[in-house]
Amino acid sequence: MVEIDRQTVERLDREDELAPYRELFQLPEGLIYLDGNSLGPAPKAVFAEMEHAVREEWANGLIGSWNEAGWFDLPRRLGACIASLIGAEADEVVVSDSTSINVFKALQAALALNPGRKVILAEQAGFPTDLYIAQGVQAWNKDLELRLEGRDGERIEELIGPDVAVVLVNHVDYRSGALRDMAALTASAQAAGALVVWDLCHSAGVMPVDLGGCRADFAVGCSYKYLNGGPGAPAFIYAARRHHGRIAQPLTGWWAHRRPFAFESAFEPAAGIGALLCGTQPILSLRALLPALAIFERVDLVRLRAKSEQLTELFIELVERCCAGHGLRLLSPRAASRRGSQVAIGHDHGYSVVRALVERRVVGDFRAPDVMRFGFAPLYIRYRDVWDAVERLGEVLESGLWREPRFAVRSIVT
Amino acid sequence: MVEIDRQTVERLDREDELAPYRELFQLPEGLIYLDGNSLGPAPKAVFAEMEHAVREEWANGLIGSWNEAGWFDLPRRLGACIASLIGAEADEVVVSDSTSINVFKALQAALALNPGRKVILAEQAGFPTDLYIAQGVQAWNKDLELRLEGRDGERIEELIGPDVAVVLVNHVDYRSGALRDMAALTASAQAAGALVVWDLCHSAGVMPVDLGGCRADFAVGCSYKYLNGGPGAPAFIYAARRHHGRIAQPLTGWWAHRRPFAFESAFEPAAGIGALLCGTQPILSLRALLPALAIFERVDLVRLRAKSEQLTELFIELVERCCAGHGLRLLSPRAASRRGSQVAIGHDHGYSVVRALVERRVVGDFRAPDVMRFGFAPLYIRYRDVWDAVERLGEVLESGLWREPRFAVRSIVT
Repeated sequence: MVEIDRQTVERLDREDELAPYRELFQLPEGLIYLDGNSLGPAPKAVFAEMEHAVREEWANGLIGSWNEAGWFDLPRRLGACIASLIGAEADEVVVSDSTSINVFKALQAALALNPGRKVILAEQAGFPTDLYIAQGVQAWNKDLELRLEGRDGERIEELIGPDVAVVLVNHVDYRSGALRDMAALTASAQAAGALVVWDLCHSAGVMPVDLGGCRADFAVGCSYKYLNGGPGAPAFIYAARRHHGRIAQPLTGWWAHRRPFAFESAFEPAAGIGALLCGTQPILSLRALLPALAIFERVDLVRLRAKSEQLTELFIELVERCCAGHGLRLLSPRAASRRGSQVAIGHDHGYSVVRALVERRVVGDFRAPDVMRFGFAPLYIRYRDVWDAVERLGEVLESGLWREPRFAVRSIVT
Repeated sequence: MVEIDRQTVERLDREDELAPYRELFQLPEGLIYLDGNSLGPAPKAVFAEMEHAVREEWANGLIGSWNEAGWFDLPRRLGACIASLIGAEADEVVVSDSTSINVFKALQAALALNPGRKVILAEQAGFPTDLYIAQGVQAWNKDLELRLEGRDGERIEELIGPDVAVVLVNHVDYRSGALRDMAALTASAQAAGALVVWDLCHSAGVMPVDLGGCRADFAVGCSYKYLNGGPGAPAFIYAARRHHGRIAQPLTGWWAHRRPFAFESAFEPAAGIGALLCGTQPILSLRALLPALAIFERVDLVRLRAKSEQLTELFIELVERCCAGHGLRLLSPRAASRRGSQVAIGHDHGYSVVRALVERRVVGDFRAPDVMRFGFAPLYIRYRDVWDAVERLGEVLESGLWREPRFAVRSIVT
């Protein structure tokens, strides 16, 4: 890649068959948005859809919209859309609640399917909420043990023993972007008699995921990152069909009932994926997700993944070439095939560098203690954006701009 | 009230100091909407607010809006708004998740505060999701007993013994509209050493509620009925300040952490009401709730309750006068002071009658097996609406319109 220059990346953009998708998103003029792994941008179609949802469905349709606008079916309808992106059948996924709540449901359901075993195996360095929820499940059932990869240095594969009931694991690490081998880990866990819950927060919508082909048991994920569903959009949960009819979890709200509108006094779980629903869902947030998922209808996920790998590879190569000598440390796997669609770079003053970059109209984010994260969503990020972003990163580092005191002030970064 | 006629109700409307509030809502022309106890109408202000939230905060502000648009603070900010309607301090309430999830949190937190006791006391005839969640909590902890009012005919007060850890009870019954005496029941439960969780779904926003004055322990409620927050708008949860710092519940998502953005590996609950949060919340749905709650800023809840009692009283009196001989049965308490803002009337073919009324532009709803429910939200329902609704009910019954086969077809009614 010695000869790469801006003309080359412009040519790559011209030849990119995914390029037209960028036009479907509302992106602020001149902004290079490398944080779609935290919050995807707004699909242009969402403006009219939300206006319709508020003015027609809610204000005009009122209570009748639960039937007529299909509100009650949204968790299943949206679940079917997501299913096609993660290698699931349409009736194996619902959209409901938050990722945290869904991790809780999935862990409880897996434990109930594996009653003789008492160990939850998870990641010390996984996204904190997964870990916290696992801690919550364990704290409320003292018979359980929570075993953590990374606590004593072992890899998760080495910790799977005959006592493990369920393995909770992230497909792509939220910080480093390291990508797990879903097929291999699922197979080895199941060979040891455990069930596996995959967290797809950082892989759904940015690469092919094959839950069915890997024989995964459960999966969860959020819809506001690469799925572009809007801030805090409800999460999804998957259960393999072979477990349907035997799904039990304690968040037994009325939407999880087999006959929710019969208003019976005894809870009886829905036969299928509905057993992983709970209470009434936030319809306006679900409605925003609908046009976002429609964008994916004709997306070739293999092509999407190929572009994603090219974007992260280009970023790393350009950073190595243009930003040497500034104390940057690559924290993501160097092989494109082993990382997701984000690149993590360590810098002792990473927070200030990220803030200074925002002033130069490049948005990445920061994770304590020293991680700068840059996400490359191939539906709307161009090759030239990668070039320009690295150029500006080089300028920020060369100029020492990031040392200015105003960039040292902390604010909430999600 | 023998002399009441349409001129009288028109005069009542002219003299009603709450009448101007009706203008703040978008109500379909000519529709008499007596189902605000299921889904409140859209405040007119919500249209511009949602457009701003989608176009400016999400599409333009992107990830920065978590700070700059105050998204992260919305659960507490909205909680403070609701607090003023239910006799709570601003920092005793958050808006988060669904009522079902919040019932789960409140029950778990109450059980953890009362560890020596093993009985959950609830209502057989309460809203099903409360009951189902209590069943879920019990099923996952076989040491617990779930005792139900109504199973053997006793009233809840008679079932409070020295073994009861927590009483879960609805302030207003979702079907009959019967209103509990919050002060008396809380006092008698606490005198027996139990904690009390109040479900305010059918009272918050339609009458003064005094959680603080009654020394309630926990409360939950939804925001899409009398609070008009939009379909499935997230629910609220209250914990009395005396319990803060000791709140423990197993849905320990990252928003419930004391330092959510430190990304620590050990869960440590927030010191205050934040311990009852869980995961990332659906921001667009929360944003719709903001203008809805702003309407209540200057509402006199005592006046609101007085109008509510007058509306339900007028409805019952007119039904008794105009609809006699059609097999109607009043299922709500006859004394206005003992019911909420809804009136339940039994009819053997209640479903068909409700459907036929919809055709006459009067929207109530139906609850199995035979209950017609009519809600009177005093912020936007007029005295003349009550008159007209009863007139049309009389016409439907007199004409036998409801017997037409098309009204017998069941659809989902929420």
